[in-house]
Amino acid sequence: MAVATQSIQELCINSIRFLAVDAIEKSKSGHPGLPMGAAPMAFVLWDSFMRYNPKNPQWFNRDRFVLSAGHGSMLQYALLYLTGYDSVTIDDIKQFRQWGAKTPGHPENFVTAGVEVTTGPLGQGIANAVGLAVAEAHLAAKFNKPDAKIVDHYTYVLLGDGCNMEGISGEAASIAGHWGLGKLIALYDDNHISIDGSTDVAFTEDVSKRFESYGWHVIHVKDGNTDLAGIAKAIEAAKAVTDKPTMIKVTTTIGYGSPNKQDTAGIHGAALGPEETIATRKNLGWEYDAFVVPEDALNHTRKAVERGAGYESEWNTVYADYKAKYPQEAAEFDRFITGKLPDGWDKVLPTYTTEDKALPTRKHSENCLNKLGAVLPELIGGSADLTHSNLTELKGAGDFQKGHFANRNIHFGVREHAMGAICNGMALHNSGLIPYGATFLIFTDYMRAAIRLAALSEAGSIWVMTHDSIGQGEDGPTHQPIETLASLRAIPDLTVIRPADGNETSGGYKVAIEKSKAHASTLLAFTRQNVPNLAGTSIAGVAKGGYTIVDCQGTPDIILIGTGSEVSLCVSAAEKLTAVGKKVRVVSMPSSTLFDTQDAAYKESVLPKAVTKRLSVEAASSFGWHKYTGSEGDTVSIDTFGASAPGGICLEKFGFTVDNVLAKAKALLV
Amino acid sequence: MAVATQSIQELCINSIRFLAVDAIEKSKSGHPGLPMGAAPMAFVLWDSFMRYNPKNPQWFNRDRFVLSAGHGSMLQYALLYLTGYDSVTIDDIKQFRQWGAKTPGHPENFVTAGVEVTTGPLGQGIANAVGLAVAEAHLAAKFNKPDAKIVDHYTYVLLGDGCNMEGISGEAASIAGHWGLGKLIALYDDNHISIDGSTDVAFTEDVSKRFESYGWHVIHVKDGNTDLAGIAKAIEAAKAVTDKPTMIKVTTTIGYGSPNKQDTAGIHGAALGPEETIATRKNLGWEYDAFVVPEDALNHTRKAVERGAGYESEWNTVYADYKAKYPQEAAEFDRFITGKLPDGWDKVLPTYTTEDKALPTRKHSENCLNKLGAVLPELIGGSADLTHSNLTELKGAGDFQKGHFANRNIHFGVREHAMGAICNGMALHNSGLIPYGATFLIFTDYMRAAIRLAALSEAGSIWVMTHDSIGQGEDGPTHQPIETLASLRAIPDLTVIRPADGNETSGGYKVAIEKSKAHASTLLAFTRQNVPNLAGTSIAGVAKGGYTIVDCQGTPDIILIGTGSEVSLCVSAAEKLTAVGKKVRVVSMPSSTLFDTQDAAYKESVLPKAVTKRLSVEAASSFGWHKYTGSEGDTVSIDTFGASAPGGICLEKFGFTVDNVLAKAKALLV
Repeated sequence: MAVATQSIQELCINSIRFLAVDAIEKSKSGHPGLPMGAAPMAFVLWDSFMRYNPKNPQWFNRDRFVLSAGHGSMLQYALLYLTGYDSVTIDDIKQFRQWGAKTPGHPENFVTAGVEVTTGPLGQGIANAVGLAVAEAHLAAKFNKPDAKIVDHYTYVLLGDGCNMEGISGEAASIAGHWGLGKLIALYDDNHISIDGSTDVAFTEDVSKRFESYGWHVIHVKDGNTDLAGIAKAIEAAKAVTDKPTMIKVTTTIGYGSPNKQDTAGIHGAALGPEETIATRKNLGWEYDAFVVPEDALNHTRKAVERGAGYESEWNTVYADYKAKYPQEAAEFDRFITGKLPDGWDKVLPTYTTEDKALPTRKHSENCLNKLGAVLPELIGGSADLTHSNLTELKGAGDFQKGHFANRNIHFGVREHAMGAICNGMALHNSGLIPYGATFLIFTDYMRAAIRLAALSEAGSIWVMTHDSIGQGEDGPTHQPIETLASLRAIPDLTVIRPADGNETSGGYKVAIEKSKAHASTLLAFTRQNVPNLAGTSIAGVAKGGYTIVDCQGTPDIILIGTGSEVSLCVSAAEKLTAVGKKVRVVSMPSSTLFDTQDAAYKESVLPKAVTKRLSVEAASSFGWHKYTGSEGDTVSIDTFGASAPGGICLEKFGFTVDNVLAKAKALLV
Repeated sequence: MAVATQSIQELCINSIRFLAVDAIEKSKSGHPGLPMGAAPMAFVLWDSFMRYNPKNPQWFNRDRFVLSAGHGSMLQYALLYLTGYDSVTIDDIKQFRQWGAKTPGHPENFVTAGVEVTTGPLGQGIANAVGLAVAEAHLAAKFNKPDAKIVDHYTYVLLGDGCNMEGISGEAASIAGHWGLGKLIALYDDNHISIDGSTDVAFTEDVSKRFESYGWHVIHVKDGNTDLAGIAKAIEAAKAVTDKPTMIKVTTTIGYGSPNKQDTAGIHGAALGPEETIATRKNLGWEYDAFVVPEDALNHTRKAVERGAGYESEWNTVYADYKAKYPQEAAEFDRFITGKLPDGWDKVLPTYTTEDKALPTRKHSENCLNKLGAVLPELIGGSADLTHSNLTELKGAGDFQKGHFANRNIHFGVREHAMGAICNGMALHNSGLIPYGATFLIFTDYMRAAIRLAALSEAGSIWVMTHDSIGQGEDGPTHQPIETLASLRAIPDLTVIRPADGNETSGGYKVAIEKSKAHASTLLAFTRQNVPNLAGTSIAGVAKGGYTIVDCQGTPDIILIGTGSEVSLCVSAAEKLTAVGKKVRVVSMPSSTLFDTQDAAYKESVLPKAVTKRLSVEAASSFGWHKYTGSEGDTVSIDTFGASAPGGICLEKFGFTVDNVLAKAKALLV
């Protein structure tokens, strides 16, 4: 229909559609199908329901919006532009998917203000949204008072068929239903098209029934293309149900408006092309040039600025009242949302001497978590059903469950992948929470995409991984990490720490907590088995990544480099070598990733170029160690899969003994 | 009750229980809860339904059994022992979880005959079972004749709450329902306990309803502890439904029979202890010593040997008849199940000269797949909803769908993890199929646990991964692999190949197909963007992993080592360096994992120790490259996340240009 006869709603919705069409046409890259089909539901949500302040994207009490179907990024950029965010101008939209643009291919929270989480890898966004809703529920339960609700917002997520096919979304939806997160509202863009064509080729399940089986409230909007009132009614109904998350299945036509490509896979992930762009303009009666938004539409959508200022101002009043009545709680809340750590928090971290009892580092981790949990109420997390193996319970902090959202021990169930993405969502709620997730180190394989996204999207999640080597023992090769540490160390911006003992465990947590507040993610790897407390280890040493714990006079003949449970083998071997007149240095390298960030002088002081006889000792793959051992060095390592046997036997059989370290060191020294 | 009053069924079931109790008690390690609770359903299945031949565990037409809840391994070992498999003796059971035992912590197909797939990492087994059922359905559709059914067996899988919480199981169940795999029957041990305690803490969804939503036939056996007739009736009903997979929810008591520990998490994963073992014996009226199976029970269960010989003999008659009537098909079938390749199969692999058009290696891959698909009817696979990006369609081979199981193009949907495990199940059907699964390289993160298990469990799956670098372009950092290649190369027994051009793509497929038949897994990484065909590349070179493609007279001043799309940068840089009088060698290193397996003399011939100026060039992390570049070498690499921009711009901005390679080479040569 011609513009003249379009309602203001239609004008706005078509503005979204054509911003997407034109940006993708210009960049010749992108996914127009989703923005064109989902524009109506997105418009209704952003225009009539969502509370946000475009001029202060980080306003605390905003509703969160997650575009789980991240390939439809132009939908989100169009919304940000139309509603008056400064982060996305029309020029930014013209730069869609170009080098340095604010409008990258998929939404990136660290690039574009107004984007809450980084999406694209399918299914992550819905799980992040569960994490955002967990954060809201927890903070609301913790801080709200009967007469002052300072934490009170919804989390909305828009997901597609792709998200719903991914296992992670099922995991996240199951636990969200279990928790009854009533302020989580998912809009499912049911457009029955994925890249391979109709969802008939691979996805014919009854999604609504599945969500019902998880305990969700489910609504169906049959005509998501034009029934704006139906969409609005559904969102209202969703908000009315407060003890269950709601999934609104909104049936739409992918690429709505494109006369020859709508409802086909052809419009999912490719520009329309010049002809079809013209045809679509004609079909939708769109008389405007590329990138031109009709003034009426912009005037309408930009009302969000005034609305937003109003919402924030209302909240400021509530918060001022709260501050007056509950100054202590308000001070804590303020500390939370400004991301500050309490003074002296790290004083609780224990230190040890060689006299202290040998313990597994997972036990030291439990101790650290509990000491930290007492001084850092923002520490919240748990395990993927291995609480008493990972030793991650915060004693006395209660279980986070429906009706008990102020508690801090989260049972994620056997859902590693969702756990990772939920932690990321909690971190990216950006309200000071320090989330941690735990499982066996090997099962990082199940959640690797979430671990990577934590690093990429600057989510300060902490990963507590136990049973970190073949010392795991009887469970055998399916449960014994070999290549796992290497594969994690290779991830950019992820700090991997494998502490040798009690001091280094404390050091690991110090780094992890500080990094979390600095929006960076850390993975800690702990032993199942006992390790002695060593002389020379320190909290400060861990921060350097690698440091000398045993040294000799003058230039060493050899440097033994160990991590975690193998550092003590290095120390023992060094004693024996020293006894026969060798000059030996032992370097504990809990974190090669941190060591790499030190300056050249420090690195040279620990691993001088002149010392070419170097032996690394780690009960894991040699992969990556040659960087530190150099061309003339060697490794004590395991480059095959492990075996089922008691952990001590495994370590011995695979050569993690003082004798074998000695033998390899002597071979180098010949 | 006392033994005298126990039925033979009860005697057998208690024999299973106490073999598990005693073995775990002896090793002080293991999971008694599942074997004790699931013994009745396992007994009914193995005694009354399953067709297998203990004396020929690899008899082709056997029913497949998968213990998806692999921690309950003693259940399977007890069944193998009781039914007369030679692979598990009573002495093997006494060696449970000990070094070198046939009875490792979790079932390992490569250790214990009678175990079909390796389980333990939760959810993998049910997805493997879908793969086994796919293999059966495909081979049945392909080979069976109206008058001769030579492929006709069921796939049974026993899974627990843990499996059902994992996303991978949801993915696999959804696609199995879509396909309507009628001969897949899952027994869900609904014991409402996981490691963290009651499933009430994290898992309260309606599992039956969820499976119904996937299109499964669902049955509930309310008393799985004692209602043997009910279990049998359910399995009969499952078999009667031929167009849907069946999930039988069998409600049981974990650790059934242990008076103080049953129905608690305490019995899930720890030995009962001496007192409770005695109490359990008393409670169940079990008068036998540890590891003693009553003769009546053994006589009964060992009837499986005679039954099995009969099943195989019947099948041999059917097969002899088939052979007589359909000699050509029988010859092909025989080739399949003996794992042979047809003569001259590799002759179809194309070769190229520098005159041939520059193409993306994913395009060369498409060409190889289609050439191979024509001569290798056992090649079957597809993509996780990226068919036309991965270019993995076998043209003319049709889509594998309900009613069209003879076809070979599988649409896995956006379910990377299930895809991986389904491919592994197809490979471990051990009937000659060569399964392949495809997605973008970055999304190996979603399926890493399955990729690892392929390598560990000797499944000859082939992973076809495209968009292998920041050359991916506009999709941005969420879609651009950086650390991915390194993280995959670190996995033991996985061959990773990144071909430089057309010849190397052919070489990659030659390795992958041969390895598949030798029960080893290969991952191929292909470019999105065009690469030129280079002089010196070859199929034979790929098999060596690394080889010289440009050389100089005498000892090189410098060696440039490239992989994939960056080899051509090395060649161009070498030309320019040669022009200014430098002696340059270019090594193409499509597979450092294969190169590592070459003998020392060959490795020295390619990378002589005397040449210490070495520069690696790969549009990926430097992680792992120092092994080849040595202490005095350097890398052209990217150790940060990528960016959203056209692929060529990304490569240029991050330094993957001839100029930058030249500059780094010159810096080394100073």
